[in-house]
Amino acid sequence: MLVAKEADLRHRYDVTWRLTGVASRRSGWLADPRGFNPRDLLEGHPVLHGPHAVPPRDVREWLDCAQADVLFEATSLNTDTGQPAIDHLRAALERGAHAISANKGPILHAWSELSALAREKGKRFLHESTVMDGVPIFSLFPAGLPATDLRAIAGVLNSTTNVVLTEIEKGRSFDEAVRHAQSLGIAETDPTHDLDGWDAAVKIASLVIVLMGVPLRIDQVRRTGIRELNLEKIRSARAAGMRYKLVCRATRHAHGVEAVVQPELLPLSDPLAQLEGASSAVRFDLDVFSFSLVEHQPGIEATAYGLLADFLRAVRPL
Amino acid sequence: MLVAKEADLRHRYDVTWRLTGVASRRSGWLADPRGFNPRDLLEGHPVLHGPHAVPPRDVREWLDCAQADVLFEATSLNTDTGQPAIDHLRAALERGAHAISANKGPILHAWSELSALAREKGKRFLHESTVMDGVPIFSLFPAGLPATDLRAIAGVLNSTTNVVLTEIEKGRSFDEAVRHAQSLGIAETDPTHDLDGWDAAVKIASLVIVLMGVPLRIDQVRRTGIRELNLEKIRSARAAGMRYKLVCRATRHAHGVEAVVQPELLPLSDPLAQLEGASSAVRFDLDVFSFSLVEHQPGIEATAYGLLADFLRAVRPL
Repeated sequence: MLVAKEADLRHRYDVTWRLTGVASRRSGWLADPRGFNPRDLLEGHPVLHGPHAVPPRDVREWLDCAQADVLFEATSLNTDTGQPAIDHLRAALERGAHAISANKGPILHAWSELSALAREKGKRFLHESTVMDGVPIFSLFPAGLPATDLRAIAGVLNSTTNVVLTEIEKGRSFDEAVRHAQSLGIAETDPTHDLDGWDAAVKIASLVIVLMGVPLRIDQVRRTGIRELNLEKIRSARAAGMRYKLVCRATRHAHGVEAVVQPELLPLSDPLAQLEGASSAVRFDLDVFSFSLVEHQPGIEATAYGLLADFLRAVRPL
Repeated sequence: MLVAKEADLRHRYDVTWRLTGVASRRSGWLADPRGFNPRDLLEGHPVLHGPHAVPPRDVREWLDCAQADVLFEATSLNTDTGQPAIDHLRAALERGAHAISANKGPILHAWSELSALAREKGKRFLHESTVMDGVPIFSLFPAGLPATDLRAIAGVLNSTTNVVLTEIEKGRSFDEAVRHAQSLGIAETDPTHDLDGWDAAVKIASLVIVLMGVPLRIDQVRRTGIRELNLEKIRSARAAGMRYKLVCRATRHAHGVEAVVQPELLPLSDPLAQLEGASSAVRFDLDVFSFSLVEHQPGIEATAYGLLADFLRAVRPL
């Protein structure tokens, strides 16, 4: 995405970039302040321009060695602790780099702390791509919707259960439907995280923490997955013009927020009922009106774009 | 809306306001820099605190007398010229006041001029409530979606035709359906503007002008209304799981933008097909992903909120 948008960033925003560090399980901590050729990195053989006196051994040494101004954090989600992503983001902010996360763990476990640290350092902690990829949700509030009260959120935000329920409607067994979702690259090898509603719970908790300002814990989300649904009920509902969807909801009450993830039977007239495949939708009920955002069949570039947009928001406030 | 949000504006944004002028066909130009009581105005008997030496005779005198920092322009749409709204907004900007419009005429006929004038004066020309009320569309681009190419827009943006088509599906005649829409306060006494697709054409042209940066004229929108639709076709389509909707579309081509308003037969799986009553939706196809915004059954406060949000964006950049 950085390469694809390189000319656009230069001409429209006067922004240029250099990729001075990359780290992964396979590559270890690689840094070169003169910059890597991104194509070499994608092809798996980065060229270091000069030998390091001491190769970096951890995230702090790596950020220093790379002279990083911006960190993109895209490790896998750790629901229990948010680590190691939190340590990576904290290290970036402490050295005065912007911290951009595609990982929901740090929102669940350290949103207040990282936001405060970013403010203190005059840098940004941004995470637009964590829910609905690059669709601007976190960027919409509060600038787009000032002086509103967000009273409720409802969403269908998990692709695997979307695909599995559609395939069951078509007559497939539960296991066949899961294998189909895996063959599309939507479900993971271990689909538990999706089927038991953890992914949806993490997403609704992230929205509540950031948009409602309430420090909800993941174990406070009442969570029911789709495994216990009766297959014949799913099919007969479809025949009767209704559909089961795994819906997540958060509602503000006098004493806090109630958050629930559960299968719901929706009429076809509900926009949430129409979603197929990787499409997702979220509805916001404000005091002044209600609206929904729908993302239509995104590809992987939609997530990459979310990170790029955060990068632009950070380095060049628009 | 200003009164309802008064405490919120003060506490959350440190913004206070005074209503120093009001003008309408009925009241004429009223101004008092010490401020009116908004409730007196709503009840139709404003109290002037002191006699004016010379009561204002036009918009410029009125703005001066009111010592206006912000103008809210909410006259009715003049599709042909955009007047007198353009003159009002220009006068406000020239005296150094922010210009906030709920009127699409100035977008159609003077968007570039008013935007340039606002930049020159260091003030804002904002018009969020002109399309989908307070739902942030104009505020979303470009800050929310930097470095994207907007390739196509599709929307169902006219409530009257929505209601009329639904009532025809239910078995009503065309005239009965129009009277029903009028009884709901959705259609105007003369429903031509809606039924012949002018309202939808004005909205898609406004989106193209602002979001695609192309100075489209309203006569360049290929426009077909819903009067020629066969009633039995509408009903049989519904029975077969399809619906007619008045859809507006704009598509970017190598040499400009093609814009069309016409009735389209949509499958129920299309989010645009699900809309009822005053609900509306617009889909944006970007190079990096596609998404839709849906507004659910807004009331008049949704439009008022759009103006209030523009006010906050103008006086207190967020």
